[in-house]
Amino acid sequence: MVSPHHHLITLLTDFGLDDVYVGVMKGAIARINPALNVIDLSHQIPPQNIMAGRFALMNAYPFFPAGTVHLAVVDPGVGSKRRAIALQLPDSFLVGPDNGLLTGILELLPGETLQAKIICAVELNNSAYWRTNIPSNTFHGRDIFAPVAAHLATGVNIKKLGKMIDPASLIKLSLPELQITSSQIIGSIQYIDHFGNLVSNIPARYVEGKNWAVTINNNGFDDNRLISTGKTYSDVAVGEILALIGSHGWVEIAVHNGHAQRQLNLTAGDMMVVVFD
Amino acid sequence: MVSPHHHLITLLTDFGLDDVYVGVMKGAIARINPALNVIDLSHQIPPQNIMAGRFALMNAYPFFPAGTVHLAVVDPGVGSKRRAIALQLPDSFLVGPDNGLLTGILELLPGETLQAKIICAVELNNSAYWRTNIPSNTFHGRDIFAPVAAHLATGVNIKKLGKMIDPASLIKLSLPELQITSSQIIGSIQYIDHFGNLVSNIPARYVEGKNWAVTINNNGFDDNRLISTGKTYSDVAVGEILALIGSHGWVEIAVHNGHAQRQLNLTAGDMMVVVFD
Amino acid sequence: MVSPHHHLITLLTDFGLDDVYVGVMKGAIARINPALNVIDLSHQIPPQNIMAGRFALMNAYPFFPAGTVHLAVVDPGVGSKRRAIALQLPDSFLVGPDNGLLTGILELLPGETLQAKIICAVELNNSAYWRTNIPSNTFHGRDIFAPVAAHLATGVNIKKLGKMIDPASLIKLSLPELQITSSQIIGSIQYIDHFGNLVSNIPARYVEGKNWAVTINNNGFDDNRLISTGKTYSDVAVGEILALIGSHGWVEIAVHNGHAQRQLNLTAGDMMVVVFD
Repeated sequence: MVSPHHHLITLLTDFGLDDVYVGVMKGAIARINPALNVIDLSHQIPPQNIMAGRFALMNAYPFFPAGTVHLAVVDPGVGSKRRAIALQLPDSFLVGPDNGLLTGILELLPGETLQAKIICAVELNNSAYWRTNIPSNTFHGRDIFAPVAAHLATGVNIKKLGKMIDPASLIKLSLPELQITSSQIIGSIQYIDHFGNLVSNIPARYVEGKNWAVTINNNGFDDNRLISTGKTYSDVAVGEILALIGSHGWVEIAVHNGHAQRQLNLTAGDMMVVVFD
Repeated sequence: MVSPHHHLITLLTDFGLDDVYVGVMKGAIARINPALNVIDLSHQIPPQNIMAGRFALMNAYPFFPAGTVHLAVVDPGVGSKRRAIALQLPDSFLVGPDNGLLTGILELLPGETLQAKIICAVELNNSAYWRTNIPSNTFHGRDIFAPVAAHLATGVNIKKLGKMIDPASLIKLSLPELQITSSQIIGSIQYIDHFGNLVSNIPARYVEGKNWAVTINNNGFDDNRLISTGKTYSDVAVGEILALIGSHGWVEIAVHNGHAQRQLNLTAGDMMVVVFD
Repeated sequence: MVSPHHHLITLLTDFGLDDVYVGVMKGAIARINPALNVIDLSHQIPPQNIMAGRFALMNAYPFFPAGTVHLAVVDPGVGSKRRAIALQLPDSFLVGPDNGLLTGILELLPGETLQAKIICAVELNNSAYWRTNIPSNTFHGRDIFAPVAAHLATGVNIKKLGKMIDPASLIKLSLPELQITSSQIIGSIQYIDHFGNLVSNIPARYVEGKNWAVTINNNGFDDNRLISTGKTYSDVAVGEILALIGSHGWVEIAVHNGHAQRQLNLTAGDMMVVVFD
């Protein structure tokens, strides 16, 4: 069993950076244990976009030390009957709303069964570990999640935080299914990053070691044309398009020193197809 | 008397995140004491908007540990004869320009008199605690305020930082007065957050335990229509408007999974009226 | 020889704050040494803009403690044959791509020769200090630079990180040469900050102690008109233009409580001329 010996919390929200909401969560953490180290993942998840938060969290998770407490709040159902939860995974902890935000990570973990992936799941209903016994109705990040994460990162046993729940009862969100044949994989764009790179939902393992290219379907782009693959952006000339395995581990489309999203005019959800030679 | 035993500084500015100004302030702090913990409140206060910075600081303040040093710089008068000040409150310290930015917090503190709220006020004129004896004319955040905050958080007595001044001489900024009758409270919008929530200047204590609704006055919205109250966003359907007590402790208007500011086309300063049954 | 006794790393990138890239670099650092302190300089350098990153880094550098490790990643050539490097300067360390991003700092250092300024330069080719032996092709920030910076800040000798290289072989980027006569200095705008201040490439030392003014050349502004100097913004009325020595140490143009870039409609690279009395 892992202990949170690094005293490390990561923080992911859709709160933005204009207001003091994120700072206030860190204040609530510092009140419980000022020695904790908080690392921001992002606070610019599009408001209420659970799928985007889920993608961000699952792609950041593998790069943190064992014992890290990942605190994520994209929570349009705050104050309703959606559950507040904490999960103990084999090498870390997750804290946030039970709305699918946290469970993308489970797809990355080894193991066949939920029981192998989730050591313990609890509903956060022990108010002794909250900021106050009576939390606000609209800011559980400050009043419940941040204090709970601080207690976990300080070494409090997860079982003290509330009643144990069945991992099978957790809300899960799924990407659209890939359509896989011997000649192609039909997927879609699941995320567009700051550089305009178009990240698909097709994992690298489907193309590694093969000859492949990508085709897309949109107005203004000839879908008979294949986008060739490269290893890195500078494998093509400045302004040219390429397909590659991105650092996240997904097939993506990029433009060398450019912005693929604006150049191709595609958006999240649009089709992206890997074609094999 | 509180000691800054947490070695915690919060940082609020209008410097934005494009430039290195905020990082440079943290460098100036680290030069004095690299063990200090700095938490960002926000750096995206609209440039030179002292009222917005005042709102942010007073709403973040209550959630930090005793002994925290709150360093705030929204300082259009930098280099002029406006005073640089530090205040010792009953449970924390404030550092920044004497332009009203810091004094919003005083409204939140218990006590009838300024003397009960301010243990000590000093003008920062002892250059021994600055970065250099001759500060720049345009960046006191780096040259005066950050070093002074670092010294305070390290345990230097506030009285060493400069000459004591009369708390009554501090610049104060006030919100427009509420117009209160038995049937209604006429207030206004003092802040609009990242989610588009419209935060009024009407404190929660005026409506708690009562039957109330909100009405507004603008083009494109029927001011005879009342906005009903809820406890949380999801008490209404997605896209619907509600009035509620926000997490800041003020009456606010929000839209479930939407953006009230854009939907209602209101702006800071616009009228917001609480109507009682 | 300086030791990294502060365990301090600064981080400068063009990754933006929407994605988790910056957070993931901090995760890679925490995996090597969770006690390191990471300070963000900026992550909003315009994508692939090495000159803007170079300006930011060289202007932040002087304000950090001796021993700081400055980690900077604006890296359009990632995965190509551009070198990954670390430099030991007399009082700090630099880590990043060999594309000119890091070498602006050298212009600020005392000493006549490169040998006086660079204690040691290495190419980062010892994969024992990377995150994995086989880094991704597109995210050396996570896989090479962050781990190397963490090892340096923890006290690893720079010579262990790879083979020593000749400082003279480092890529350098230069600003356009100033044209200096006894009556004027013709320079240009090298940076525009969050407040719209127009920062020239004319160092303060050329104007200090002299009577000077500034003139510019653009559509909509009378270039016979001289912009008068002041010490700080409030030396002129709100909305008025002035020239001053900015906190960076360069001649700049600003507007009191306004935005000089929008008011004058100038852009990076435009001419700015200091005229002496």
